[in-house]
Amino acid sequence: MERMALDAIAEHLRSLDIDVLHEDLEQYGRDETMDLFAPAGIVVRPRSTPEVVEVMRLAQQERIPVTPRGGGTGKAGGAIPVQGGIVLSLEKMNRIKEIDASNRYAVVEPGVILWDLHAACEEQKLWYPVDMSSGGSCLIGGNLACDAGGERAVKYGTTRAQVTGIEAVLMGGRVIRSGGKLAKNSAGYALHHLLVGSEGTLGVITEATIKLVPLPTHRRTLLAAFSSMDTAAQAALEVERCGATLSAVEFIERAAAALAEEMLKVQLPHSDAAALLLIEIEGFSEARTQDEIEQVGTLLLDAGADDVELAPREKVWGVRHAVAEATKMLPAYSACDTVVPRRSMPKLVSRAHGIARRRGIEVVCFGHAGDGNIHIDFIKRKEVDANWDQQIGPAVRELLKATIELQGSITAEHGVGILRREDMPLQFDEDTLNAMKEIKRAWDPDNLMNPGKVFPEGTP
Amino acid sequence: MERMALDAIAEHLRSLDIDVLHEDLEQYGRDETMDLFAPAGIVVRPRSTPEVVEVMRLAQQERIPVTPRGGGTGKAGGAIPVQGGIVLSLEKMNRIKEIDASNRYAVVEPGVILWDLHAACEEQKLWYPVDMSSGGSCLIGGNLACDAGGERAVKYGTTRAQVTGIEAVLMGGRVIRSGGKLAKNSAGYALHHLLVGSEGTLGVITEATIKLVPLPTHRRTLLAAFSSMDTAAQAALEVERCGATLSAVEFIERAAAALAEEMLKVQLPHSDAAALLLIEIEGFSEARTQDEIEQVGTLLLDAGADDVELAPREKVWGVRHAVAEATKMLPAYSACDTVVPRRSMPKLVSRAHGIARRRGIEVVCFGHAGDGNIHIDFIKRKEVDANWDQQIGPAVRELLKATIELQGSITAEHGVGILRREDMPLQFDEDTLNAMKEIKRAWDPDNLMNPGKVFPEGTP
Repeated sequence: MERMALDAIAEHLRSLDIDVLHEDLEQYGRDETMDLFAPAGIVVRPRSTPEVVEVMRLAQQERIPVTPRGGGTGKAGGAIPVQGGIVLSLEKMNRIKEIDASNRYAVVEPGVILWDLHAACEEQKLWYPVDMSSGGSCLIGGNLACDAGGERAVKYGTTRAQVTGIEAVLMGGRVIRSGGKLAKNSAGYALHHLLVGSEGTLGVITEATIKLVPLPTHRRTLLAAFSSMDTAAQAALEVERCGATLSAVEFIERAAAALAEEMLKVQLPHSDAAALLLIEIEGFSEARTQDEIEQVGTLLLDAGADDVELAPREKVWGVRHAVAEATKMLPAYSACDTVVPRRSMPKLVSRAHGIARRRGIEVVCFGHAGDGNIHIDFIKRKEVDANWDQQIGPAVRELLKATIELQGSITAEHGVGILRREDMPLQFDEDTLNAMKEIKRAWDPDNLMNPGKVFPEGTP
Repeated sequence: MERMALDAIAEHLRSLDIDVLHEDLEQYGRDETMDLFAPAGIVVRPRSTPEVVEVMRLAQQERIPVTPRGGGTGKAGGAIPVQGGIVLSLEKMNRIKEIDASNRYAVVEPGVILWDLHAACEEQKLWYPVDMSSGGSCLIGGNLACDAGGERAVKYGTTRAQVTGIEAVLMGGRVIRSGGKLAKNSAGYALHHLLVGSEGTLGVITEATIKLVPLPTHRRTLLAAFSSMDTAAQAALEVERCGATLSAVEFIERAAAALAEEMLKVQLPHSDAAALLLIEIEGFSEARTQDEIEQVGTLLLDAGADDVELAPREKVWGVRHAVAEATKMLPAYSACDTVVPRRSMPKLVSRAHGIARRRGIEVVCFGHAGDGNIHIDFIKRKEVDANWDQQIGPAVRELLKATIELQGSITAEHGVGILRREDMPLQFDEDTLNAMKEIKRAWDPDNLMNPGKVFPEGTP
C-alpha cells in the first residue's frame, strides 16, 4: 500500500519538476550514529519552500511519514527514516539569501553548510559564532533542529541564541513565519523557539534569520597541561573569574587527544599530561587581547596547570575537532552527550571513569568545559568481546542516571533522536512528556513528522 | 452561576488555608495600561506551587477563567481579568530560592521584585542583567510572561536569554518542568521557551532558573547631545562598530527628556539639543573601561554629536526611567512599543513625527536604540479635544502598519495583551495565528487561561 502511494507521490512530484532521487538512496538511511540504518522509501530534494509545501501536502493526504534531513552528521539518529516513507533532504535549499551587514543578520535556507556561512560572513567582517567539529558538512537546518551548541556557546550561546526568525512548513503544507531581524519581539508565541530543538518532529524549517556579530580582529588559543584530570576540570571554572570574554573553554582528557593525534599523525605537547585545557580569547585590540591572555595564563597556573602556552591555533583545534571522529574509527564506541551544571562537571567525569573501571571497559572524556557539556565516549580499542556487549548498555544507562542525579540533561547538543528516546522518562515526568506530546499532536495529529523520534516507543 | 461557583471555590480554597482576598479587589482589575479596567471575581494569592495546582484544578473543574498577575506594571492589559473569574496574583510567591554563585544561576519564584533580585545578586558580586524602568515594582513572573527586555538587552538579550528552566502549572493542575541550570540542553521541546512570552495564556509560571553574570566592577555612562534627531539615531548605530561591550544605547528625544525633568524637578544639560544618547560602558578593569570610553566618545563625535560627556549615572538614568511615567501623567497619551531592525529605527522615528504632524497631535520617542526598540508615545499636553479623540486610534494604527512595513513587530517587550490583540493580523498570517491557537487549545481546550488576550476577539 505505502509503496504504491510512494510511487504515485514520486511520479507526481517529478511531474512538478521536483527532484526525486532515483538511485544511491542508501546513504539517506544513515547518519553518524554508530551503525543505525533504516531504508528510505523515496528521497525528495526540494529547492524551495513551495516545493516543500507540495511534499508535505501529499504526505498528509496519503498518510506517509516524512523524515527531514540536513547534512547527515547527526549523532542520535534523528535523520534516520525509521518508518520508511519520504526522506526530505534539505541539501539543495542551500542559498544564503542575504547577509544584511548593516543590521548584522543573515537570512539562510536550511541547506547551507555551516562553514560556508562562516566564510560568507567573514568576507564582510562579520561572524556567525556557532562552530563545531562537523562544520564542514553539517547544515544549518540540522543545527536548528538539534539546537547545536559547539565550542563557542560558552560565550555566544547555542544555535537558539542566534535565531530570531524562522519560516517552517507544517505537516499538510501550512507555512508559518515567526520573528525576524529583531533584537526584541514579544508578539505572540515564540514559535521559532519551539521549532529550534524539535528535531523535525513538528515541521520542516525552510528559512532562518540569524544574528551575526562583528568578527573579532584578534584571536589567541592557550593550551594548558594538567597532571590531574580533576584539577583541569576545576581550572576550567576558575578561568571564568577574570571577566575576560573567553570564547572557548575546552577540556580534553589526554587519552582522547592521543586518539586524534594518532589519526591525524600530529603531536601536541605534553603527552604525559592527564588532561589539557584549550582556551580561546578574542577581541578587537592587540593590547587588550594580550592583557587578557596574561590574566588567564596566571589564573590557569594558580589553578594548578603544570604548563600554559600560546598554542598554534590550527593544530590544537584540529586535534580537538578530530576526537569524535577518532573514537568512531575504533572497533566499538558509544557516545554520550552529557551536560550538567558547570561545577558538577568534574564530578561527572570522575563518575564516568568509575563506571568504566567497574565494568572493565574504557572511557574518554572531552568537550565544552565552559558550559558543563562533556562528551563521554565509552570505547573499545580491540575487537568487541562478550564483556563489551554485556556492559555497554548498562554503562550508558548508569552514566545517564548519574547525569540526571547531578541535575543535568541526557543530551546537550546532539538531540534525542532514536538514541535517547527511551531515556526521556529519566529526565521528564509524565505530565511534562504529555504536554510535549499534546503539542506534537496539535500540529501533526497523524504522527507523520519524523515519527519514532524524541518520544519513547509507542507514543505519541 | 459563575458567582456561585466562585463563592464555592473561595470557600474551598480558604478551607485549605489558601489566601483569598476579601477586600480591596479593585486594584486587581487594573494594570498600567492607560485606563483599562475589569473587575476580578475573586483574588487568590497562593504561596506555593501546590496551592497554584489547587486553584487550577478547581478552575478547570468549574470552568472559571484564571488571569495570572505579577506586579501589575504591564502596559498592554495582560493582567486585566476581562472575563472576571479568578485573578491569580503571584505576589506572595516571592522567594529567591537559591543564588547558586558557583554555577552562576538563581532559582526564583515568580513574585520576586526585579530590583530585589538585583540586590541579592549584587551581594554575591553577581548580576541579573535585565533591567527596566519598572524594576522597583515589576515581578519576575511578569517579566517572563512578556519576555521583558529593557535597556541591557542590547548586550545581554531579553528575559528569554537568561531563562534556562521553568516550572509551570497548566490549566487543570498539571505541573510541567523544563530545563535547569544548564548552558546547553537539547532534550525534548523547549517548553520554557514556549512559556516565555506567552503572557499567561498557556499556564502559570511558578519557578524559573535564570543565568547570572559576574557583576562588572566598572560602569560609566556617556551622555551625547545632538542637534538633529536623525543624526542621533544614526550615531546610536555607529557606536557599535568599536567592538566595545556597550551595555546600553538609549535614545531620548529632547522633548521626552523634558517631560521627565519637569516631573522630577531636575535638569540635564543640553536643553537646546534635539536628542540625547545615553551610552553605558562596563567592564572589569579601570584601564580597559577608560580605553573604551575614549573610543566610544570619539565615535560619537565623528558621528555628529555636538557634545559628549561623562554623565552622573543616577541623574541621567533617573530621567531616562521617568519618561514613561511622565507621559502617563499627561491628560492623555497612547504608548506604542515598537521594534524594527536597528537600521530602520531612524526611519520609524521620522515616520512617527510625520504621522503626528499630519494629524495635529504630538509625539515623543525614546527607548532602546541599540536594539531598534523605540517607545513612541502620542501625547496630549492639554485637555483632550475632539481632534485627539478622532486622530489617536488611526494614528496608532498607521504607526503599527509602518512598523510592519519596516519588518518590525507590534510589540517589542510589553506584550500583546488586550491592547494589541486586534493588531496581530498585521504581523501574522492566518496559518501562523492558527498554529499558535492550536497550541493554546492543546493545553487549554476550554480557553480558561487568561482569556481575551493575545489573539483577536472571538478566538481561539
